[in-house]
Amino acid sequence: MNQESLKKLLEKVRSGSLPVDEALQEMRHLPFAELPFAKVDSHRGVRCGFPEVIFCQGKTPQQISQIARTILDHSDLLLATRAGPGDFEAIRGVAPEARYHDQARCVTVERGEKKPGAGMVLMISAGTSDIPVAEEARVTAEIMGARVETVYDAGVAGIHRLLHQTERIMAANVLVVVAGMEGALASVVGGLAEAPVIAVPTSVGYGASFGGLAPLLTMLNSCAAGVAAVNIDNGFGAGYLAALINRRREGKD
Amino acid sequence: MNQESLKKLLEKVRSGSLPVDEALQEMRHLPFAELPFAKVDSHRGVRCGFPEVIFCQGKTPQQISQIARTILDHSDLLLATRAGPGDFEAIRGVAPEARYHDQARCVTVERGEKKPGAGMVLMISAGTSDIPVAEEARVTAEIMGARVETVYDAGVAGIHRLLHQTERIMAANVLVVVAGMEGALASVVGGLAEAPVIAVPTSVGYGASFGGLAPLLTMLNSCAAGVAAVNIDNGFGAGYLAALINRRREGKD
Amino acid sequence: MNQESLKKLLEKVRSGSLPVDEALQEMRHLPFAELPFAKVDSHRGVRCGFPEVIFCQGKTPQQISQIARTILDHSDLLLATRAGPGDFEAIRGVAPEARYHDQARCVTVERGEKKPGAGMVLMISAGTSDIPVAEEARVTAEIMGARVETVYDAGVAGIHRLLHQTERIMAANVLVVVAGMEGALASVVGGLAEAPVIAVPTSVGYGASFGGLAPLLTMLNSCAAGVAAVNIDNGFGAGYLAALINRRREGKD
Amino acid sequence: MNQESLKKLLEKVRSGSLPVDEALQEMRHLPFAELPFAKVDSHRGVRCGFPEVIFCQGKTPQQISQIARTILDHSDLLLATRAGPGDFEAIRGVAPEARYHDQARCVTVERGEKKPGAGMVLMISAGTSDIPVAEEARVTAEIMGARVETVYDAGVAGIHRLLHQTERIMAANVLVVVAGMEGALASVVGGLAEAPVIAVPTSVGYGASFGGLAPLLTMLNSCAAGVAAVNIDNGFGAGYLAALINRRREGKD
Amino acid sequence: MNQESLKKLLEKVRSGSLPVDEALQEMRHLPFAELPFAKVDSHRGVRCGFPEVIFCQGKTPQQISQIARTILDHSDLLLATRAGPGDFEAIRGVAPEARYHDQARCVTVERGEKKPGAGMVLMISAGTSDIPVAEEARVTAEIMGARVETVYDAGVAGIHRLLHQTERIMAANVLVVVAGMEGALASVVGGLAEAPVIAVPTSVGYGASFGGLAPLLTMLNSCAAGVAAVNIDNGFGAGYLAALINRRREGKD
Amino acid sequence: MNQESLKKLLEKVRSGSLPVDEALQEMRHLPFAELPFAKVDSHRGVRCGFPEVIFCQGKTPQQISQIARTILDHSDLLLATRAGPGDFEAIRGVAPEARYHDQARCVTVERGEKKPGAGMVLMISAGTSDIPVAEEARVTAEIMGARVETVYDAGVAGIHRLLHQTERIMAANVLVVVAGMEGALASVVGGLAEAPVIAVPTSVGYGASFGGLAPLLTMLNSCAAGVAAVNIDNGFGAGYLAALINRRREGKD
Amino acid sequence: MNQESLKKLLEKVRSGSLPVDEALQEMRHLPFAELPFAKVDSHRGVRCGFPEVIFCQGKTPQQISQIARTILDHSDLLLATRAGPGDFEAIRGVAPEARYHDQARCVTVERGEKKPGAGMVLMISAGTSDIPVAEEARVTAEIMGARVETVYDAGVAGIHRLLHQTERIMAANVLVVVAGMEGALASVVGGLAEAPVIAVPTSVGYGASFGGLAPLLTMLNSCAAGVAAVNIDNGFGAGYLAALINRRREGKD
Amino acid sequence: MNQESLKKLLEKVRSGSLPVDEALQEMRHLPFAELPFAKVDSHRGVRCGFPEVIFCQGKTPQQISQIARTILDHSDLLLATRAGPGDFEAIRGVAPEARYHDQARCVTVERGEKKPGAGMVLMISAGTSDIPVAEEARVTAEIMGARVETVYDAGVAGIHRLLHQTERIMAANVLVVVAGMEGALASVVGGLAEAPVIAVPTSVGYGASFGGLAPLLTMLNSCAAGVAAVNIDNGFGAGYLAALINRRREGKD
Repeated sequence: MNQESLKKLLEKVRSGSLPVDEALQEMRHLPFAELPFAKVDSHRGVRCGFPEVIFCQGKTPQQISQIARTILDHSDLLLATRAGPGDFEAIRGVAPEARYHDQARCVTVERGEKKPGAGMVLMISAGTSDIPVAEEARVTAEIMGARVETVYDAGVAGIHRLLHQTERIMAANVLVVVAGMEGALASVVGGLAEAPVIAVPTSVGYGASFGGLAPLLTMLNSCAAGVAAVNIDNGFGAGYLAALINRRREGKD
Repeated sequence: MNQESLKKLLEKVRSGSLPVDEALQEMRHLPFAELPFAKVDSHRGVRCGFPEVIFCQGKTPQQISQIARTILDHSDLLLATRAGPGDFEAIRGVAPEARYHDQARCVTVERGEKKPGAGMVLMISAGTSDIPVAEEARVTAEIMGARVETVYDAGVAGIHRLLHQTERIMAANVLVVVAGMEGALASVVGGLAEAPVIAVPTSVGYGASFGGLAPLLTMLNSCAAGVAAVNIDNGFGAGYLAALINRRREGKD
Repeated sequence: MNQESLKKLLEKVRSGSLPVDEALQEMRHLPFAELPFAKVDSHRGVRCGFPEVIFCQGKTPQQISQIARTILDHSDLLLATRAGPGDFEAIRGVAPEARYHDQARCVTVERGEKKPGAGMVLMISAGTSDIPVAEEARVTAEIMGARVETVYDAGVAGIHRLLHQTERIMAANVLVVVAGMEGALASVVGGLAEAPVIAVPTSVGYGASFGGLAPLLTMLNSCAAGVAAVNIDNGFGAGYLAALINRRREGKD
Repeated sequence: MNQESLKKLLEKVRSGSLPVDEALQEMRHLPFAELPFAKVDSHRGVRCGFPEVIFCQGKTPQQISQIARTILDHSDLLLATRAGPGDFEAIRGVAPEARYHDQARCVTVERGEKKPGAGMVLMISAGTSDIPVAEEARVTAEIMGARVETVYDAGVAGIHRLLHQTERIMAANVLVVVAGMEGALASVVGGLAEAPVIAVPTSVGYGASFGGLAPLLTMLNSCAAGVAAVNIDNGFGAGYLAALINRRREGKD
Repeated sequence: MNQESLKKLLEKVRSGSLPVDEALQEMRHLPFAELPFAKVDSHRGVRCGFPEVIFCQGKTPQQISQIARTILDHSDLLLATRAGPGDFEAIRGVAPEARYHDQARCVTVERGEKKPGAGMVLMISAGTSDIPVAEEARVTAEIMGARVETVYDAGVAGIHRLLHQTERIMAANVLVVVAGMEGALASVVGGLAEAPVIAVPTSVGYGASFGGLAPLLTMLNSCAAGVAAVNIDNGFGAGYLAALINRRREGKD
Repeated sequence: MNQESLKKLLEKVRSGSLPVDEALQEMRHLPFAELPFAKVDSHRGVRCGFPEVIFCQGKTPQQISQIARTILDHSDLLLATRAGPGDFEAIRGVAPEARYHDQARCVTVERGEKKPGAGMVLMISAGTSDIPVAEEARVTAEIMGARVETVYDAGVAGIHRLLHQTERIMAANVLVVVAGMEGALASVVGGLAEAPVIAVPTSVGYGASFGGLAPLLTMLNSCAAGVAAVNIDNGFGAGYLAALINRRREGKD
Repeated sequence: MNQESLKKLLEKVRSGSLPVDEALQEMRHLPFAELPFAKVDSHRGVRCGFPEVIFCQGKTPQQISQIARTILDHSDLLLATRAGPGDFEAIRGVAPEARYHDQARCVTVERGEKKPGAGMVLMISAGTSDIPVAEEARVTAEIMGARVETVYDAGVAGIHRLLHQTERIMAANVLVVVAGMEGALASVVGGLAEAPVIAVPTSVGYGASFGGLAPLLTMLNSCAAGVAAVNIDNGFGAGYLAALINRRREGKD
Repeated sequence: MNQESLKKLLEKVRSGSLPVDEALQEMRHLPFAELPFAKVDSHRGVRCGFPEVIFCQGKTPQQISQIARTILDHSDLLLATRAGPGDFEAIRGVAPEARYHDQARCVTVERGEKKPGAGMVLMISAGTSDIPVAEEARVTAEIMGARVETVYDAGVAGIHRLLHQTERIMAANVLVVVAGMEGALASVVGGLAEAPVIAVPTSVGYGASFGGLAPLLTMLNSCAAGVAAVNIDNGFGAGYLAALINRRREGKD
């Protein structure tokens, strides 16, 4: 209906009852929403290559199931993060093929045929407690089409475990480094890799970790170039950004 | 020139060479800037009732004089804040009638006939060192058309000095409270006044004032309702907002 | 009884047993509370146009019901914030017409005839999780006589949703912007609106949001003039201040 | 037994088997604990005018009852702070005359005849939620022999309520000001009183109160001279210090 | 002139033209400042036992000399803190007997006959760099009539130097402890002394001292009861409070 | 020389004096540096596609000129950041073709033939004071082979200026958003763009910006996916990462 | 299998089919993990004198029992920290001789013959609530072979209790000081001892302790030389480091 | 003279005029300083193996030269830290053999014959700007008798440079790791070394390094056991502690 007043205006132009200059003048005063605004307005899924995501925390199962239905009406893919088992049930009620990734606490629905992932995104995490955040990143990057490999439990205190992975670190197209405690892993990986590194500080740690502030500052101050950080525990954000970068570097966008 | 492609499109509609529906479709793909966007785009001065302001800090006199000229091309008013004597000279070269307010460190140009200020905005400051920030607020509010009165040096440690001003506090249409140290003045005034209070923390203080953090937190946590805070030392912001509110409460906007 | 000593003093003056000058001298030494202090002391409801509000958090239902009774003895209006269902029951026992606003977690009693609200206050919130705070602001502003409209779920990451509301943003007399995460909404709205903007940071977010510190700093540092902030999650404070600003001064409504 | 080696040494001196100079030399090499150290070592209760206090938080009822017994073996007074009902029971098992102060969450035992309190300590608190901390201060000061009066619910947003207490504020020998939210009360009282003011920030508040940091900074930055602060929620510390000061100012120590 | 309307009112009472009850009623509506407000309003010097102090930092020599003259018009004592040599010259122009205390950076004028100090205030400082703050406290306490003794350079890293002062620590009526670095001195002194301890953190230190935050937190968290803190580097505040505590109440010195 | 012991070992193997298994065993005990470590060790320039960079701040011109000579011995490119005019002179002494970028405070040497940049990196900055940081990012990305376009002075308070750039925002392969004050620009751009966004907070601002902390937190908490942050004022880091992302993988540039 | 390619290469050298120089060249291109890396890679237990430790927090009993089995396959010692009773049961299932240290919340298995501890490590703690952290340090140091003595409840507020331990403080080879509240104990002990002091801040305290930040800053700013700090509540880290140092100072490593 | 009263007392015992028990009693009341306190009091240099150090910052050359003379009266060694060239001149006036270490900003005097250092202390620093702090540590450790080796410019971003030093890292008896920026070096070294690691954060860095807070937190949260931290930029403290650890106990060097 937003288009109605614009359409009427154009019809007046066509019929000659409204001169072009006056039409231009009048368009300036149309309510904003009635302007043809599609390029910005629509197709968010198409534009960013991925439809809406549900952040479940703080939402009821009813709300989640309703949003899931709306998304799946126009998309073959769905990702729900910070999802508990109850949230999974809510989505499965709408999409029986939904899968639950319990370490990642994510639900995914992938209806279309899966395209083989382009480029390799490498997830590296420091300690066992960082794995849930790394898994959230992995699930996110995979549903966005990336091929993901993982190197978990490779903290810098046992640097050789990390160095044994040098080949894969060099082969990666993008790297996501997930670390709590002091977060030094991002700098070391940043020094070994030639690809972009997305660093995710986690709130894993105690004492002067201050809920993830310590690894966050470490990662922002990294002496290795080519590293940027996302928010504490934000595995989704890292996986999303890694998948975006991965496409670019493969020449797919 | 942005309008050109749109004009051509409308002319095609008028000539009948482009059906209305196709025209609508095509408009969706016009570059954004070519859309009739005036309502949002233009007349910032008209819209907010005040033209651009120059924040001098970090700008060269040359930059300042050039911006001043541009503003005065389409406005009778100009305000430059954080202005040193050299910045004043730069503006006086463009507008000989410019005035320098040295406590406020502001330059003003007021070319039009001055309308008598509507409503009274009361500036209250705690210590002598808070006066420059309060003066910046006063100069700002006055050039925006407010009538301003001031009560300086009325800190809460000598509460009677403040209480002697109760009449004026109750008469004010809006109040701006400027205080460093512990910033308690905002709460006390908020409890006495029936009008909105804009609180400005200042970086005046020492030790655990932490550059104004202490009075800022005090003001945000004020137990008196009807109080909001602007940034540390932001006299301009407080004066601007006070003038906006003042107009509203006078039924002028 | 406070008035007793003053009365006696005046009677001595009347009887001629105390010269006027000595009476003046003696009044200086009367205990403070015995002075005629009414203007400051009384009529808080009248003065600020609104009676006491109950902040329920940390109070027992018994305390709440008792305070509610006291307020309603001399007022037709009552607002209770941070109220759970039990608190609502406590108030309903005193005032059967009480209403519970569950998203806002507020209880209201409005006994008098409702005056049509003057001016429009627009509440804009960023995410769904910010709605409770926005609702607290709405309920507060409405019971103080404002006409409120709302635009919820208009975060800056989907800027077009916000831009579609440009007409209403420009029509508002005062705006309240409620946002967690990074709080950028306040700056964008501040740039679009010509009316004062009261910004409310919320504790919604995770990681480096640090309980609302991130949006609070964002709002205080807003590059848009005409914006001031209240405390984190303080919907009541924002609604109260917005209603004060919205209200025309005596004889101007 | 620590005294044994010293005694032997002295006996050798007396018997003439050890010359004085050699004795002096030898004393230098005695283990530290064997030196006559009584002045520093003993009589803590006597010295500070008050025996040990039990901080119950984090202790089991068994530990509490055992400590209580030890204290009461050599003292007529006992104070237990941060005490829950179970802790009270534990102490009552040892001292049936124990009293529980539930708002203050304190247990007291006062066996001796109570001396009439000297000097008046005035406890002033801002909001109802600050009362428990103020009560902890009151109970502490009273058991240490102070006469305490209280003015609760006298926040600066309703300054007249505080001003009505000017007489008592001026009569006090020491003042304890307890305030959360923005903590401005300490400055206002500091400006009215001529006696020392001990300020206690509380963790009451929300949002940018940051667990009491806001009132703490306010109090430390107080523009009124004669004010010092204790730790957040530390009613005990304030009451203890107030009682110490009270004695001094009465010439009792 | 404020007294005029009140005087007229009393004269009407005396003449019988205004009944007492109506006079009482009318007084309620007098402007606040016209009420006899002397008890709160005046005699600040008398009330707190000490006239105004000049905080020189941020004031011009002209301002300082003018304020000094005003204070000395009605007082025999003057204290100027944070005073440089130029500030001293400004005051000496007004009061030739002024003295400069260069370590304390204070100027004092003492015209009246000096009363012998009652009670002993002991200033203890940790390192040589803390001495200026301790000296500011000493000068302040002395001009307020206290007898002051000092123990400088008694940090806890050489605990024996402090322990050698145990006698004086026990003899003190009030103690002021000045310490930067980690500020542990306040706790140790608090454990040895039976008198109140005022702790002053200093900004002396480096690295994680964070401008005095470290010793401030140390002092607030002191495990010794009877300790309160003033602001960082606030020697004046500590000396002022110590002198207040030290002073016996009326008729008790 | 590190290779010597390894060479000797291999020669023993060749001569048959050392069996293969024993050789393997012995290699385990060679000093680390003597192992063939080239893949990790060498060719940093080749690996990351860019040779060493000189961070001039805190280095003497002599040090800078020496490092520059070393780099240019094996590279056609050189970048020096945080370079003052004196630093430029030092480099020009070694490489006469060096260019100084004064807004960016960078020096570049580009000796080889310049390859046409692949993909477009868009630098967007909020205020004029953010331009130096944006320029540092631009110079860095260009010398690494990116084609860069810039949109400066597009803060969110004048959102239309930004929206006029929607076409270029959508065309960009990577975006770098530079903003001080409240840093909201990153979220708005993140919502408009489909490409990765690297956000750079700047220390431009005052009061509660706390040296860039405010925009840093804003950017980390961005509600738009696809955004990551680098350190405050770190234009180099952002430009470097943007160029890495922009570059297609082997055979794709 | 990683050794395979290296072995083949060596065999080619032996057979003469690959010249030494070419072999060296080729080794540069072997995958990293195929290099003989044993010196860094293996024998962590041997190298640091202690096998892996299990940090139980955040691990399931199943995970714990599995890790315990793996460790005990090649070690006679096992330490599990942050272990609850359930974790103990899990380990006892694998190693019936496991012991639970409930204050320390540690589980230990010591199978080999216990060597008499060399050197004395002294654990000093301030308050009773600091004991669990001190006990974690004790259990850790003991299983690593240290002889440990303890002085608990020796806070600086009762300095004599600490001074009575001077002999043992001087006899210690390494000291671990555990303190919450204000953490001043580390400085005092650092001033008395001649051996290295490892300071452990604890989160014991309230108000402005900010979860252990206060004692942490105290310890880092210690005016006593020879003191270093580990993370808040990190008893394990302190005990581990103390045992390492103890060995060194005994000439055992 | 302190010994006088004790001596008299002993003489009374010897002469029989004072029974032993009464003597013991009397000693309890002697002033503290008169007790034989030598063990704690004296021989600080002997006890800690090193005489007083001069921290020059904030001291005048006169003060420095005077302290230097006093130290050298009873010691063959002197260390002055944070010393500028003028401070060096002041010391050279007293001790012509004084040496200035300009990178370390230290002055040393070593008069006695130098004993060969026992054990090797390895100083590792990350960036060139960290060298001054590392040098302060080196000079300190050397004058205390340690044999020091250095590995400078071995940041984790070029991990191979560090790994080439594995042999020396393993050979070290104690390690001092100096790093600014993100401080990750301490964790990596901690993972490689079997000896204790003292970590020194430096204030080198920019933006979110926050004056060294970032590397400090990194080091405190190190996931490698056996690491402790000293204050930001505290090279002296690290060198001092390293030398203490390095030193064998009596009879073990």
